[in-house]
Amino acid sequence: VIAVLDREAPASVRAAVVQAIEAAGCAAVVSEADGECRVAAFGEGAAALAPLVSTLPGVREVRPAVPLAAREQHPEGTRVRFGDVEIGGPVVPIIAGPCSVEDREQILAVARAVRGAGASALRGGAYKPRTSPYAFQGLGEAGLELLAEARAATGLPVVTEVLAPEDVARVAATADMLQIGARNMQNFALLRAAGEQAKPVLLKRGLAATLDELLDAAEYILAAGNPNVVLCERGVRTFGQHARNTFDVAAIPALKLRTHLPVIADPSHAAGRRDLVPALARAALAAGADALLIEVHPAPERARSDGPQSLTPAAFAALMVELARVAAAVGKRLA
Amino acid sequence: VIAVLDREAPASVRAAVVQAIEAAGCAAVVSEADGECRVAAFGEGAAALAPLVSTLPGVREVRPAVPLAAREQHPEGTRVRFGDVEIGGPVVPIIAGPCSVEDREQILAVARAVRGAGASALRGGAYKPRTSPYAFQGLGEAGLELLAEARAATGLPVVTEVLAPEDVARVAATADMLQIGARNMQNFALLRAAGEQAKPVLLKRGLAATLDELLDAAEYILAAGNPNVVLCERGVRTFGQHARNTFDVAAIPALKLRTHLPVIADPSHAAGRRDLVPALARAALAAGADALLIEVHPAPERARSDGPQSLTPAAFAALMVELARVAAAVGKRLA
Amino acid sequence: VIAVLDREAPASVRAAVVQAIEAAGCAAVVSEADGECRVAAFGEGAAALAPLVSTLPGVREVRPAVPLAAREQHPEGTRVRFGDVEIGGPVVPIIAGPCSVEDREQILAVARAVRGAGASALRGGAYKPRTSPYAFQGLGEAGLELLAEARAATGLPVVTEVLAPEDVARVAATADMLQIGARNMQNFALLRAAGEQAKPVLLKRGLAATLDELLDAAEYILAAGNPNVVLCERGVRTFGQHARNTFDVAAIPALKLRTHLPVIADPSHAAGRRDLVPALARAALAAGADALLIEVHPAPERARSDGPQSLTPAAFAALMVELARVAAAVGKRLA
Amino acid sequence: VIAVLDREAPASVRAAVVQAIEAAGCAAVVSEADGECRVAAFGEGAAALAPLVSTLPGVREVRPAVPLAAREQHPEGTRVRFGDVEIGGPVVPIIAGPCSVEDREQILAVARAVRGAGASALRGGAYKPRTSPYAFQGLGEAGLELLAEARAATGLPVVTEVLAPEDVARVAATADMLQIGARNMQNFALLRAAGEQAKPVLLKRGLAATLDELLDAAEYILAAGNPNVVLCERGVRTFGQHARNTFDVAAIPALKLRTHLPVIADPSHAAGRRDLVPALARAALAAGADALLIEVHPAPERARSDGPQSLTPAAFAALMVELARVAAAVGKRLA
Repeated sequence: VIAVLDREAPASVRAAVVQAIEAAGCAAVVSEADGECRVAAFGEGAAALAPLVSTLPGVREVRPAVPLAAREQHPEGTRVRFGDVEIGGPVVPIIAGPCSVEDREQILAVARAVRGAGASALRGGAYKPRTSPYAFQGLGEAGLELLAEARAATGLPVVTEVLAPEDVARVAATADMLQIGARNMQNFALLRAAGEQAKPVLLKRGLAATLDELLDAAEYILAAGNPNVVLCERGVRTFGQHARNTFDVAAIPALKLRTHLPVIADPSHAAGRRDLVPALARAALAAGADALLIEVHPAPERARSDGPQSLTPAAFAALMVELARVAAAVGKRLA
Repeated sequence: VIAVLDREAPASVRAAVVQAIEAAGCAAVVSEADGECRVAAFGEGAAALAPLVSTLPGVREVRPAVPLAAREQHPEGTRVRFGDVEIGGPVVPIIAGPCSVEDREQILAVARAVRGAGASALRGGAYKPRTSPYAFQGLGEAGLELLAEARAATGLPVVTEVLAPEDVARVAATADMLQIGARNMQNFALLRAAGEQAKPVLLKRGLAATLDELLDAAEYILAAGNPNVVLCERGVRTFGQHARNTFDVAAIPALKLRTHLPVIADPSHAAGRRDLVPALARAALAAGADALLIEVHPAPERARSDGPQSLTPAAFAALMVELARVAAAVGKRLA
Repeated sequence: VIAVLDREAPASVRAAVVQAIEAAGCAAVVSEADGECRVAAFGEGAAALAPLVSTLPGVREVRPAVPLAAREQHPEGTRVRFGDVEIGGPVVPIIAGPCSVEDREQILAVARAVRGAGASALRGGAYKPRTSPYAFQGLGEAGLELLAEARAATGLPVVTEVLAPEDVARVAATADMLQIGARNMQNFALLRAAGEQAKPVLLKRGLAATLDELLDAAEYILAAGNPNVVLCERGVRTFGQHARNTFDVAAIPALKLRTHLPVIADPSHAAGRRDLVPALARAALAAGADALLIEVHPAPERARSDGPQSLTPAAFAALMVELARVAAAVGKRLA
Repeated sequence: VIAVLDREAPASVRAAVVQAIEAAGCAAVVSEADGECRVAAFGEGAAALAPLVSTLPGVREVRPAVPLAAREQHPEGTRVRFGDVEIGGPVVPIIAGPCSVEDREQILAVARAVRGAGASALRGGAYKPRTSPYAFQGLGEAGLELLAEARAATGLPVVTEVLAPEDVARVAATADMLQIGARNMQNFALLRAAGEQAKPVLLKRGLAATLDELLDAAEYILAAGNPNVVLCERGVRTFGQHARNTFDVAAIPALKLRTHLPVIADPSHAAGRRDLVPALARAALAAGADALLIEVHPAPERARSDGPQSLTPAAFAALMVELARVAAAVGKRLA
């Protein structure tokens, strides 16, 4: 384990940490980097020192020598499975569906349409995080039931968002994969709750999150016992005005260098306008994305949320043809 | 009420909304602005139409004609009281204390020091939102008890953060004002829970939140029944490297033009380094802040969190002298 | 033409503009949009009214009804030629070379290597914009001579940067295409000078430029008489830390919807680290880039500038194989 | 001097630099920091080694051990004088005037009004950097003559912008202080030209410039021989929408810790709307600004540029009363 001290910690504070480690029969090595003072403990029993060391004055953090999310943990990469879908291998699943589950007809129509076009899984929100308290907040439990019905009708496994720790069990009872949205990336109670259940978790990058922070958020889930986490780039907030968010395509290869977890992309939320979605979807695949989340609605102009960025089923089918070619160009294939 | 439709909504969708409003005996006015199509309902019973209209196809949102947070609701401005402190009037309270409650000795020492220097309230975290799961997460309930003890010892009312809906009741039982942090600004379940209890809420602006989003977040609390919300500018995330966050001092007057809620500032989190805190604190007061949150620690180099941005008690006392002068220059005074 | 008035302009100011237009026998139409008040003049002789109208009080700008850069001007898209290279057609030229021309051996080695790997043109800086006055500022005229020699040796046309209006003629005498860098995107004297000479101009997007501003900068060159402008996305500055800049891949399709000018990408400057360059290059092609600028150096660890983002010749050759596949996937091909 | 090497530079490259320094009879010290490898030369004649060392392979930059802009050069702070105005001392000059010089009547009216309200100097643009080539570009030389006339009429010294190296002599013949605008902060040819003439230079921070880059830009002017540089914070570009730019008030104290040059602020360009200008002006003074630039126009609704952010003379006079109080609160005074 590594104890991180305040960079201004006086010699006496550092000495106390070293002494505690050595008193337990371990070796202590002090170093300074990235504006931190670190005291690493090595030897038998070092990992067990964490609770003790974390209570010493001046110790800001005690972390494992190698984070659970670090690529060194699984250099070959982790594959996350839900239903019969696998993310992280040579087959690139496309996860498609509406922003919100609106009614039975809508979700069944979308599910059939996206399955027909080659999608591997269904996305759809039953609990919706909305900027305004007056906006449509999703159908809640009724939405979960409709998702289950759409799964039964099409065989597509279901990805849906969970917003609060107290909803995790209920959503996990239906969903094949839980989604934690961008606004909740640092909702630590929710991350812990998602880590304490068994369904895989799709964790979206926050609007202003660095990759360090995204990996730390994943670490909350991993440290709570759930090894199946998928990271998702969905655009960040900048001064740009031509898209809803700035799609940070470089985050895909940069994350894959650092973590063994699969990295996927959501070109729909990044673009915010459907005329940019195909280009961003192709770019994400070309940059190495392990899967894509794409919003599809049978009648976008009637959608209760995110209509402007939703593709029609026909546009989605056309995009799937393009994506198959790009996947092949980078040595992968669609399902 | 105003029904907001998708900007691409066809004429038939608009007509259906108009028809529903008119069928209830109200007048409907259609307009387009800010990329939205809006149908406003006027007349007796218009407010009661919200549930009905919100279920119509193409309706993305039904909101009040004037949001609860809008200045028009209370042109003279709202004053929020907790303990014997008032925020929003001519007296500018300074809320000071450590980032985290660390132990009995520390919190009592800080409480006495800041009271001695003229602070009006005590801040201190018992539940801490930490980027890494391995960092010190706060003392939890034991921290709340220590805060209560510090209050008893000094008379200072207490502001402390709540991280999850399930903790709201427990924290509210001790705190005089609940804080919702920047990372949770769009944790809507938490906002609702804070709106359903009686203690005032200090709501911090998210790292990449627009003022519209901050006001919408406040609207969640107000719409849930709690009228006592204080907004806090604490810096936003930009490309800048000389401070932890970019202190957006213009947000203070811009918010005050739009809302009747008090607007305060947290120069400590904005700066991230103590040598900038005094200048930012003075600037915030000069720009019209109704109160300040300032981190103080008896031994910053031993702090378990945010040491680099914490002032020593002596530096805080010196700053209070400066702040008294600036407050007077803008027609206010310290407590 | 369209006269843009201050949005606060009183009725008398608007009336004076209308009167001036009508007095010249043209029709005037007043509208408000995007926070502007606009008075459009239609009819014979309307275009000739610009000088007159621009002198009226309250008139902030007189612009053509359709900007020269707008796609409506050439819906089929413009192809820009330099040497035997064409940008904007089905063949995607790869423009490669070092950041700076350092010496004869270096530039000849790179030129031969990139030609051998399939590059269509050579890039290299003789005049370098450097953040610090103490950094290597380029070889200047001697650099231009070495570029000419490399062109003679390989047949590759040359793209090189110009920094100041007074250097335009000298650089244009050697270069096949002039580059205006990100820092100079709003150096209006330089834009005009580049517009008044005949060589094509590669215009890079500024670090914090919106697409409107980039198109306005191109408009300076076009309005000065030079129709051959190529726009280049090279990353923008955000809070991100994993790359030198945030590569805004959505700018490529968003620009192509708005302008007939070719749009290319510089993944090397966006990435700032060579391990991300291949993914960004593939993503740019997949998103529709008409050409790529890639930095290659025979010995990056000895480079006088931008070494960390330069590919070795071997890595560049490997990348060309990948790019050929991605180009084919989007219906294009490398030279 | 310090030679900066590529961080990947091999041992042989480092050794060659050390050898060159030692061969000249100086001592060489190698260190690594901030991702750089640095070789410092000490001893008699070290400064004269710059030209030789800068030509060695792998050397990216040779810089003075202490930059000319660093506070260590003049710990007590530099005062810059123009006309009878001094920036950097206990008196805070307010520099006011219109964005553009529009006509004789306008500039004389403004000059008299701002002098009457207590301004110390007159600002006004004769050469205007405009985003669009069709916008009003300023009166040019005629504008300079009107500024001279306004100075003669009021005694106020004049600050005006210069856009291109070839205009420096002409503008410097009239102006008492040259302004280099945000868009030209890294127009290095212009910085050098401003450094080679004698008038003081007001250098504005670029829209996305770090403080390091601003100080490096100032270093270009200082290194060219002009010691009289004033830095100006005028807002940076972020995701924020409530103001034209995000006023980075923390840049003022952060710069003053690092440099001996005076630091001033331009609340008008930061705000972009006049209702925020007073609060930002007060905040800037409270944070330690050495002077302010404020836009004033006798009829903002008729202004040819920046009308929405210009104060009327009456509003400016009212603001001066507020500013006098804030200046006093921080131990300074207005002229």
